[in-house]
Amino acid sequence: MNTFKITPTNKKFLKEITHKINNKTKPLGSLGTLEIIAQKLCLIQNTLSPKLNKPAMLVFAGDHGIVNNYPVSSCPQEVTPQMVFNFLEGGAGINVFCKQHGFDLSVIDAGVNYDFENSDALINAKIAKGTKDYSKEPAMTKVQCEQAFKIASEIVSEKYANGSNIISFGEMGIGNTSSASLLMSATTKQSIETCIGKGAGLTDEGLANKISILTKVQNFHGISENALENLQNFGGFEIAMMTGAMLKAAELKMTLIIDGFIATSSLLIAQELNKNVLDYCLFSHVSNEQGHIKMLDFLNATPILHLGLRLGEGTGAAIAYPIIQSAEYFINQMASFESAGVANIVE
Amino acid sequence: MNTFKITPTNKKFLKEITHKINNKTKPLGSLGTLEIIAQKLCLIQNTLSPKLNKPAMLVFAGDHGIVNNYPVSSCPQEVTPQMVFNFLEGGAGINVFCKQHGFDLSVIDAGVNYDFENSDALINAKIAKGTKDYSKEPAMTKVQCEQAFKIASEIVSEKYANGSNIISFGEMGIGNTSSASLLMSATTKQSIETCIGKGAGLTDEGLANKISILTKVQNFHGISENALENLQNFGGFEIAMMTGAMLKAAELKMTLIIDGFIATSSLLIAQELNKNVLDYCLFSHVSNEQGHIKMLDFLNATPILHLGLRLGEGTGAAIAYPIIQSAEYFINQMASFESAGVANIVE
Repeated sequence: MNTFKITPTNKKFLKEITHKINNKTKPLGSLGTLEIIAQKLCLIQNTLSPKLNKPAMLVFAGDHGIVNNYPVSSCPQEVTPQMVFNFLEGGAGINVFCKQHGFDLSVIDAGVNYDFENSDALINAKIAKGTKDYSKEPAMTKVQCEQAFKIASEIVSEKYANGSNIISFGEMGIGNTSSASLLMSATTKQSIETCIGKGAGLTDEGLANKISILTKVQNFHGISENALENLQNFGGFEIAMMTGAMLKAAELKMTLIIDGFIATSSLLIAQELNKNVLDYCLFSHVSNEQGHIKMLDFLNATPILHLGLRLGEGTGAAIAYPIIQSAEYFINQMASFESAGVANIVE
Repeated sequence: MNTFKITPTNKKFLKEITHKINNKTKPLGSLGTLEIIAQKLCLIQNTLSPKLNKPAMLVFAGDHGIVNNYPVSSCPQEVTPQMVFNFLEGGAGINVFCKQHGFDLSVIDAGVNYDFENSDALINAKIAKGTKDYSKEPAMTKVQCEQAFKIASEIVSEKYANGSNIISFGEMGIGNTSSASLLMSATTKQSIETCIGKGAGLTDEGLANKISILTKVQNFHGISENALENLQNFGGFEIAMMTGAMLKAAELKMTLIIDGFIATSSLLIAQELNKNVLDYCLFSHVSNEQGHIKMLDFLNATPILHLGLRLGEGTGAAIAYPIIQSAEYFINQMASFESAGVANIVE
């Protein structure tokens, strides 16, 4: 299952990239984070003139067995399929921001606890009608996890074959901040309460409950040294599919835009399986879900946006896209000191 | 001269705006800063369905007499006209980002120390070939300052007449971080050394020199309780024009996108002349020039981007534009809980 072949980017090329950036008509370093993004785009595409094509957004939806038995979320499970219908109707946040920036949006039923009718607009990749309740047993089997990776890889390959070279991953699944917190704790070795936040909108009392429930879950399973086992124990189908999709996209040398808390929990697992995936990642934003900044710190990642978002669905990644494009455009279109006849203010 | 009639926005309308935002299909508050931007757009346009039209960018260029006698900048004064030519050729950062987001870019010679040939691409509003050296006398006369306000107002009115309702202001002028620091110190009453940074790229020694020079300048003129006097003593023609442009744009109920350190120094003066101008301002970013965050704190302003930019020219404002559009789009296009049939997760 862990057979993704991800080539690290060629860091020796950085010197040439930096030279190009430093000779643009601007004070040295004055485009800040845009310069770091441009460097990464050049490394990923192995060129001094990177070009972003056909941005793709894959939104995976799945339900969580724990929600049926414990109040880990402020929302009822019915909201997962209701929001899937909202995606299909075009009324959700992710629809608006994908439309704004020309993303090809795909909605995938990874494992929603609802029988959707067949529809061209919804990719049916349902593994089961929600995961098992991980307070009692692993959320999914090894076979289910393998299946999630396989399906997600196929979807990514199709986007790649259609000419996309930049891709992002969003999610919908009532209860999935709980999975993400458990995966974060298992991967980063931070205490489980450090990793838990209010999700869509728990009260202080609800948060205390969530901490108590998930502490028991963690004690029940223990933490494995094997990332896949942690994913099977604590994951969701949407989280597993994002993990597989990220590994495949990196194998294909696409640029990955990582969204918020849940998506980053998928990446935590992905980078345990293959560290090289990180060479292909841009981090769209730091979420208001309190654990997210700690995940980013663990990954040494610099987020592009600080907007206090915590909507999920891939929205942070879509909103950040024009900033990534600004990096693409400045490195390709800005004049150099020499070409513009400007005294080199970097010296 | 201070005859701008700026109507405060109607804060009573906020309740209705907040109701609309809170009923979008998303967890309460989960669009963070985008929600604050959407609120402001609604207040400015006095509607629940704001619409941004024809974004305009005015880049004012001017030179500074102090540069001829003291080393306050790492760049020679020739860079000002060289960069103006770069703007006209389309090779500067601001060209790239304006093109990306469909801004109508105007380049204005507010007072460059160079004789440009007549050109349709450059608006000739030259007040003088640079300000006077403010270590010896006021940078400009009262008449020149009035002239700057008048010309800038006319340019803004023309953009407004052409259908623009969102506007930003950029600058180019070797030495203008010095003016901005002096204006910041005079307005915020913070010590002059607190307000001074490295600009385009001073060394530590250069910075110490700049502090020493500007401390003498401040002692020479003193600080006036009259904001216009401070502007005349310490300003640049590009800074004065931005101040006038901001006041006029607010009078016309346009949305103002405020750029970095220099542009915010213009706003510091503008809001001393008429506090209501702040009702019309969005703050595009927090710059890496160290005084900028303190200016924003003084104004109680939340910047949209944290990208470590310090290029000037209006680039931060242009780069932030799609985020402002995201706010416009979500409030207009996202479904409500009721329309989408989603259980209201805000309750």
